[in-house]
Amino acid sequence: MSELDIVEKIRRLGKRGPRITLGIGDDCAIYRPRPNDELLFTADQSIEGVHFLPDQSPSIIGHNALARSLSDIAAMGGKPRFCLVSLATPPERGAKFIDAFYRGLITLARRTKTVLAGGDLARSDKIYCDVMVCGSTTRGQALRRSGARAGDLLYVSGRLGKPWGGRIEPRLELGRALRGRATSCMDLSDGLSLDLHRLCLASAVAAVVDRVPIMPRATLDRALHGGEDYELLFTLPPRKSPPRGTTLIGAIVKGRAGAVQFQGQPLVPRGYDHFVS
Amino acid sequence: MSELDIVEKIRRLGKRGPRITLGIGDDCAIYRPRPNDELLFTADQSIEGVHFLPDQSPSIIGHNALARSLSDIAAMGGKPRFCLVSLATPPERGAKFIDAFYRGLITLARRTKTVLAGGDLARSDKIYCDVMVCGSTTRGQALRRSGARAGDLLYVSGRLGKPWGGRIEPRLELGRALRGRATSCMDLSDGLSLDLHRLCLASAVAAVVDRVPIMPRATLDRALHGGEDYELLFTLPPRKSPPRGTTLIGAIVKGRAGAVQFQGQPLVPRGYDHFVS
Repeated sequence: MSELDIVEKIRRLGKRGPRITLGIGDDCAIYRPRPNDELLFTADQSIEGVHFLPDQSPSIIGHNALARSLSDIAAMGGKPRFCLVSLATPPERGAKFIDAFYRGLITLARRTKTVLAGGDLARSDKIYCDVMVCGSTTRGQALRRSGARAGDLLYVSGRLGKPWGGRIEPRLELGRALRGRATSCMDLSDGLSLDLHRLCLASAVAAVVDRVPIMPRATLDRALHGGEDYELLFTLPPRKSPPRGTTLIGAIVKGRAGAVQFQGQPLVPRGYDHFVS
Repeated sequence: MSELDIVEKIRRLGKRGPRITLGIGDDCAIYRPRPNDELLFTADQSIEGVHFLPDQSPSIIGHNALARSLSDIAAMGGKPRFCLVSLATPPERGAKFIDAFYRGLITLARRTKTVLAGGDLARSDKIYCDVMVCGSTTRGQALRRSGARAGDLLYVSGRLGKPWGGRIEPRLELGRALRGRATSCMDLSDGLSLDLHRLCLASAVAAVVDRVPIMPRATLDRALHGGEDYELLFTLPPRKSPPRGTTLIGAIVKGRAGAVQFQGQPLVPRGYDHFVS
């Protein structure tokens, strides 16, 4: 198996069209944006031993690698357009791993209409991957973290406290439904306590949380601080009704920027931090 | 040092403007393209032990991580617009490494007008990084690998056979000067023998090489097969004069697609391949 053979296999998974006029196999992919779009860009890494264990199913590793970035596009209310996938693997994992990884990734890519437009392949000691996704919204429509105002109500989708190693399902439809309605939005990728702290910092507000919807068999601690949820956290003005499948968990209040209370006590942001053990 | 502190430091290196309306600190960066642009996208990995050694200067690691992707933008004749930088480091390398890495990267980014718009940070056992660059050209102007025709003359920029570990200088000005003139172009990132083979495959042509400009103290073998050159390889119709600083090395001929001869003998493509040892 040579790099040329692998690239040729991956190239067949890619697609061209009126907007992706050049895909895998040249120095760059070419994308022709629509006239009134603004483009959203995000990149997320998936690293063996940090985001997944070496014995996890390669197709779930591929699925989740793309899903992490799609979750950021969902958080801004975007529609995914294309992705670049950079993958480094130990040569001894071989073509079998690469095939299964791309099978998991491309299944999710096709379902969400995300074109595989390019990327990079290399060898490494451990499996490492980085997925960049480009999404789009109409100008001025993207949801941001910074728009929450005192008096807004605070919601999350789904239930929190998901276990490590499951399949991530990006909330793309919910994100798009929130455009023009939510005053702020972000995805929960490092735990509610840390992510809500970040949302409050970006919006220069404080928040109170009364309750959280918890996954069956999860602890409250995991629901408040676990980093595997990939649900959306968002704020609505009090007069707006929330979409189905979302739960009111609290409210935005005046106070020190970033301060969060849970059931009357300060909630310390101790979600996942890569550089603090 | 927490991830929030590091992100805050990096955020100050980023920039907003009329096109990058949202930068580091939200779920995605937002880019507003110009109406007639087509956008070029590339991603390149830089991995400890593969692309650089752990004792290399962190600022050169950062410079080269961006330079590899800029070299792909140069190869298509593009103007760099912005980049996303994903970096994973062992926590014990600390803030000092991250600071120096970004100092090297941002110096090159500013010189080439590439806005640092976002990315991802994580921990890992070894230093790993992936840089995505978006560039732009006027519609239909991007240089490709696939346009070489029998009778075209074959050129390279600079001298070949550069040693491992030097600073990569992307040939952005040359790439832009070749738009509308070169029939094909690519950057030399895996060695002349393998890259010329790829260009000939993409264009469905063969090539003959008579001579190559060699770096002082480099061997002919390194000039033909070394993977550190990041010069441009391009073809011009015989009537077009070549830009300064480039050397005529051969010609495109009819023949089996991908076949290359050097001084009358077949040149086997044995440049750098990540999956063949």
